[in-house]
Amino acid sequence: MTEVASLESIETPAALVDLDRLERNLARWQEYCGRVGLANRPHVKTHKCVEIARRQAALGAAGLTCQTLHEAETMAAAGFRDVLVPYNILGAGKLERLSALLARAEVAVSVDDEALLAGLDEAARAAGRELRVLVDCDTGLGRTGVQSPEAAVELGAAVARRASLRFDGFLTYPAPPDARAFLARARELADGAGLEAATVSVGGTPAMWESDGLASVVTEYRAGTYAFHDRNTVAAGAARIEDVALTVLATVVSRPAADRAILDTGSKALSSDPGPDEGFGQVLEAPGAVLEKLNEEHAYVSLAAGEELELGARVRVVPNHACVVSNLFEEFVVVSEGRVVDRWPVARGRIAPSP
Amino acid sequence: MTEVASLESIETPAALVDLDRLERNLARWQEYCGRVGLANRPHVKTHKCVEIARRQAALGAAGLTCQTLHEAETMAAAGFRDVLVPYNILGAGKLERLSALLARAEVAVSVDDEALLAGLDEAARAAGRELRVLVDCDTGLGRTGVQSPEAAVELGAAVARRASLRFDGFLTYPAPPDARAFLARARELADGAGLEAATVSVGGTPAMWESDGLASVVTEYRAGTYAFHDRNTVAAGAARIEDVALTVLATVVSRPAADRAILDTGSKALSSDPGPDEGFGQVLEAPGAVLEKLNEEHAYVSLAAGEELELGARVRVVPNHACVVSNLFEEFVVVSEGRVVDRWPVARGRIAPSP
Repeated sequence: MTEVASLESIETPAALVDLDRLERNLARWQEYCGRVGLANRPHVKTHKCVEIARRQAALGAAGLTCQTLHEAETMAAAGFRDVLVPYNILGAGKLERLSALLARAEVAVSVDDEALLAGLDEAARAAGRELRVLVDCDTGLGRTGVQSPEAAVELGAAVARRASLRFDGFLTYPAPPDARAFLARARELADGAGLEAATVSVGGTPAMWESDGLASVVTEYRAGTYAFHDRNTVAAGAARIEDVALTVLATVVSRPAADRAILDTGSKALSSDPGPDEGFGQVLEAPGAVLEKLNEEHAYVSLAAGEELELGARVRVVPNHACVVSNLFEEFVVVSEGRVVDRWPVARGRIAPSP
Repeated sequence: MTEVASLESIETPAALVDLDRLERNLARWQEYCGRVGLANRPHVKTHKCVEIARRQAALGAAGLTCQTLHEAETMAAAGFRDVLVPYNILGAGKLERLSALLARAEVAVSVDDEALLAGLDEAARAAGRELRVLVDCDTGLGRTGVQSPEAAVELGAAVARRASLRFDGFLTYPAPPDARAFLARARELADGAGLEAATVSVGGTPAMWESDGLASVVTEYRAGTYAFHDRNTVAAGAARIEDVALTVLATVVSRPAADRAILDTGSKALSSDPGPDEGFGQVLEAPGAVLEKLNEEHAYVSLAAGEELELGARVRVVPNHACVVSNLFEEFVVVSEGRVVDRWPVARGRIAPSP
């Protein structure tokens, strides 16, 4: 591939994507999904990047998962035609945007409350399209979702009664041990009620390689972080540190003491998201160091005895949580074999532009 | 003021700035600085917003503080002519940007290492301008900075020997008890060495109201969060909750259990920055609630007994740390007496646009 800039010319902090590792991560998971019989519906919240979504689609993804309407709008504008937004969508502004989105793409959403259905039904009717709706099930996380298989089917039946909504099945996050029994019971009850649960969707990178036993109940898997991996998914055993495709390139901007180096990658580049053990990231060039504290534009690195990081040196930091790091950069600097081969915009916006 | 949109039409999550509180916060601190004899050099890292910087300047700010070159470039492009970047600037790309910035504004930077001086001197020479340099002193924080008054003056003398650099004084963050003695000793040593420390700069919102005793040693104060305040500065006693000018407007998107509400403001809107006590923010409409967990687009709110938040209700959340929240939004929605009176862009970018 053509070099578009020298790596040395890239200013820090920068979000580096290793293209070869990215493509390997994408291919490996797609192959696994194919083998165990799960549709792969990658979550774009991790990267918010059209270029990466295109690679996921080219490998065989069944569609995309978007956590916000902005992500879905970005992907629809780029030509994607099958988008799931696993989120309760409500409020006049959001429902108008959903309606506009439906005119451009096949859209599915999730719900956990019957009170949401009138708004969704009207949004779909206004678009002259059918909206697929999955019932969000709380199978152990304690976030959103109905609390029992019975409640799931009851809500599914309410969906099916709406003229412009189509009941499409069940959804949960992540895929904890209890999810299988909950979802199997919901499917069984749905069958009994004459409701077709065409889709049963679970998600989450940490446990993704343990999902081969799910296929008899589950139809699709939503994973996001698998594209990049991070300290958390490595600690969960879903990847090796050598698989991590997103790092933050940083400069040692101060060496005020023998055991301390300060990097120019603070909480506005790495986020304060917690990791599997101490520290806000892992400095690849100083494996014994602890990135122990962040200010907005400073990282405090406590060096192990004998470890050295020179003033001006450039290092790469593995974030605790890749998804929030992407959201802090305008672009990915794409690297292959040490050369910068592309720059990809990150659609990290949130709110639709003012009219 | 003219209403530019109804508050009801603002999509969530949104960063709301209460204009009246903002202006009161700015005026109160400016008045205090004038009274105790400190120059006020507000830190724009908190807001990254030209409109707010203009208000700070109009009230009498002595100049601006910017934590990144991007912030400084944004402010210089908006016409600000006196910018301090309290940061070690190094590396070819950053030094080129500094040189370009110098052609447009009076710039000061800080240093804590003699190895930085050659690059800064060359950047200033290339711009045909003089660069003011403050020596960064570690007076207790343990971040950057020289470790003793003697080392500070030695570095100051090295600055003064450079043809295009001007030694301008000393700088520290924040203003802990030890700072006063350290800085007084550094001034004394500088006087003895024939070095004029024209500026002695300290910073930090939490202790800002206790800086009246500093004026015999200190010349200027850098505070950022005082514009907005947040849970942390309220806990530090620097403001009351009624002074907080930045809140995140959120919608209750799920009520899955009697004691749990889910908001659409997660770690990509509030950040995971820690607060003074439990929780990632304070929900003004549910004072007994704990915002106990964040996912990227979800906040888990544990409601106190008897507290109620209806599905679809809109609430305002006081963040733990205002500065990282600004950085997660493209714009501030400016509110006065419940009406939306403006929208101000947030210059949250990081890297100069690709050439």
